[in-house]
Amino acid sequence: MPFSFHLEHRDGGTAARAGRITTAHGEVLTPAFMPVGTVGSVKTLAPDDLVEAGCDVLLGNTYHLSLRPGVETVAALGGLHRFMGWSGSILTDSGGFQVMSLTEFNKVTEDGVEFRSHLDGSKHFLTPEKAMRIQDGLGTDIAMSFDQLVELPAPAETVRDAVDRTLRWARRGLEERERLRGEGRGTMALFGINQGGTDAAERARCFAELGGMPFDGFALGGLWVGEGRRLGLEMVERDCAAFPEDRPRYLMGVGHPVDVLEAVARGVDMMDCVLPTRNARRGTVFVSTGRLVIRNAAYARDARPLDPECGCPTCRGFSRAYLRHLFVSNELLGMRLASVHAVHQILSLVRRARAAIAAGTFAAFRSEFLDRFHSNETLVRAAS
Amino acid sequence: MPFSFHLEHRDGGTAARAGRITTAHGEVLTPAFMPVGTVGSVKTLAPDDLVEAGCDVLLGNTYHLSLRPGVETVAALGGLHRFMGWSGSILTDSGGFQVMSLTEFNKVTEDGVEFRSHLDGSKHFLTPEKAMRIQDGLGTDIAMSFDQLVELPAPAETVRDAVDRTLRWARRGLEERERLRGEGRGTMALFGINQGGTDAAERARCFAELGGMPFDGFALGGLWVGEGRRLGLEMVERDCAAFPEDRPRYLMGVGHPVDVLEAVARGVDMMDCVLPTRNARRGTVFVSTGRLVIRNAAYARDARPLDPECGCPTCRGFSRAYLRHLFVSNELLGMRLASVHAVHQILSLVRRARAAIAAGTFAAFRSEFLDRFHSNETLVRAAS
Repeated sequence: MPFSFHLEHRDGGTAARAGRITTAHGEVLTPAFMPVGTVGSVKTLAPDDLVEAGCDVLLGNTYHLSLRPGVETVAALGGLHRFMGWSGSILTDSGGFQVMSLTEFNKVTEDGVEFRSHLDGSKHFLTPEKAMRIQDGLGTDIAMSFDQLVELPAPAETVRDAVDRTLRWARRGLEERERLRGEGRGTMALFGINQGGTDAAERARCFAELGGMPFDGFALGGLWVGEGRRLGLEMVERDCAAFPEDRPRYLMGVGHPVDVLEAVARGVDMMDCVLPTRNARRGTVFVSTGRLVIRNAAYARDARPLDPECGCPTCRGFSRAYLRHLFVSNELLGMRLASVHAVHQILSLVRRARAAIAAGTFAAFRSEFLDRFHSNETLVRAAS
Repeated sequence: MPFSFHLEHRDGGTAARAGRITTAHGEVLTPAFMPVGTVGSVKTLAPDDLVEAGCDVLLGNTYHLSLRPGVETVAALGGLHRFMGWSGSILTDSGGFQVMSLTEFNKVTEDGVEFRSHLDGSKHFLTPEKAMRIQDGLGTDIAMSFDQLVELPAPAETVRDAVDRTLRWARRGLEERERLRGEGRGTMALFGINQGGTDAAERARCFAELGGMPFDGFALGGLWVGEGRRLGLEMVERDCAAFPEDRPRYLMGVGHPVDVLEAVARGVDMMDCVLPTRNARRGTVFVSTGRLVIRNAAYARDARPLDPECGCPTCRGFSRAYLRHLFVSNELLGMRLASVHAVHQILSLVRRARAAIAAGTFAAFRSEFLDRFHSNETLVRAAS
């Protein structure tokens, strides 16, 4: 099977680690951040933009793609990579998060989740087996197990039941992949998802069983849903301590630079989030010194790039004044140029973190990055 | 002054011609099509996309840019080229068309046009002199004379008055450029605009005077505003016959492939229009065989590019099925990829027309292009 993970470096002072995942579509250096290509494109960006940003893996959404254009269409056109013109690796989620968060009517049974499409209200039924078959049909490199999400806060019993069902569904997903492999399909890697919300005991109980299953990697699920950074990072620390060293650890839905760096420090290898690109389309980007709101009037004649320290095509070619003008004028190019920067910014962060881990300088890198990031000096200087 | 025009080839069978304009920002091969960068960007496209399409000149709108971000801001940031990151040539219109067509309240006096901004209702006054100063402040390579547009049909007297005023304004614009040159500014070329609508006698009368003024080129104004292709082309033929050989001829607001080719056959050197890119953003593009409506269900699993004969990045990298999916899903990347194709398509058309003129094969090129363009075979094949 064309999936492997090699741990290359461990940081001395933290749990941070640098590794290398190999898939049929190349190598993924970890820590890795995965831009989100929800319905087959990372919004406003072409594959070339992602390559230029050094992206080696992106995330596709099973829920969205299976509703539109449908897995049969994607498969008929050669799979998701070919469909969207992306030659790097792809990780797909299982749809478990979206069926619970995006649909108005959904019903969880032991078999799976019945829901109505947010697009047209049509009725669908997603099961652990079907989630495997869809991801296989999309031609993903890394598939995710179908898990049950509970909205927090929830009674302990609800969390416990969801953990138990997630474990049963995890087994069914693995079995379905085996069945697919018997048919010469199912070559994708499969990651299990640890659940239990912010209940440390439940997460530990979940992983006690999940960790024994033959998954190729493990994800930290049910976090960054409103519990706050402190509690979230505590769960990350506990999960990573329990997860095996030799398999990648994927923290789902995290994309704020501070969270990304703190998660890396606790041993996380992979992350994804729409935050950088969604923020960018709304006119907010992260720069070395914090957050920059592009429409700010202070930038009306600011000839500097968004981030003078950034080497992305947007920062190499365009001023804050121009970007601001594009946003104020509702020009689509503004969203695109901001998204280019946003993807570069977060990928550059994990790339530099990786280099620091390899060089044994991660502690210094982390504290310098956080000091500067919180300085907010961008705006102060611009106003002068 | 850094502007020159050299006529290089004349077609034997038609009035088509191939030339070369030189500006401070390089060479513009004619016939040339100018994509429209209304408010400082050709919508959805970055300068690199235009370079890749072989674009050597684009159009900026004085009206839009002077309202937002304002000429002072653009000038403070080094001029329009630098502001938008475009190193090729720029032609700016005078704002005359927009103050009449985009504003709800406008009042023409001998001095100029008073109007309210379509953005915020603020009151402004544009004169022939101010139109020169704004274009000079933007740093354009080719400025346009400030003319008076009349909405057709109009009484003969109204057309006559507008022609007379356009001529007086043309003189005032030239004088203002001279004044600017006395101050070491005003290095831009300046084109006069012939008016008279579809009244051949009025157009001839207008040019009898306009043609004697020291303009660097002449534009055909007041056409393609609803008069129909036959009548429009008749005016083009008459104007071009009257215009001097040694200066470029610019037909304003024309971008349909058939119109472009027919105008070239009648001696036009330059054109501009939002049509290709506006259509593209709405999901319609021109291909070798005619018009292609991307959302058409027939393309849902069509693995071919928009135009199998096109070498643009969109056609090299993406299928009709993917483009259709992006449009159906309202993904911004769809508008961008379609715009990339649209600009390539029209620029490739004038480039090939130019090569045919140079090779003495323009007649054959024209008839072959039109035959294929009208064949509409794209859709028929896709449905099979």
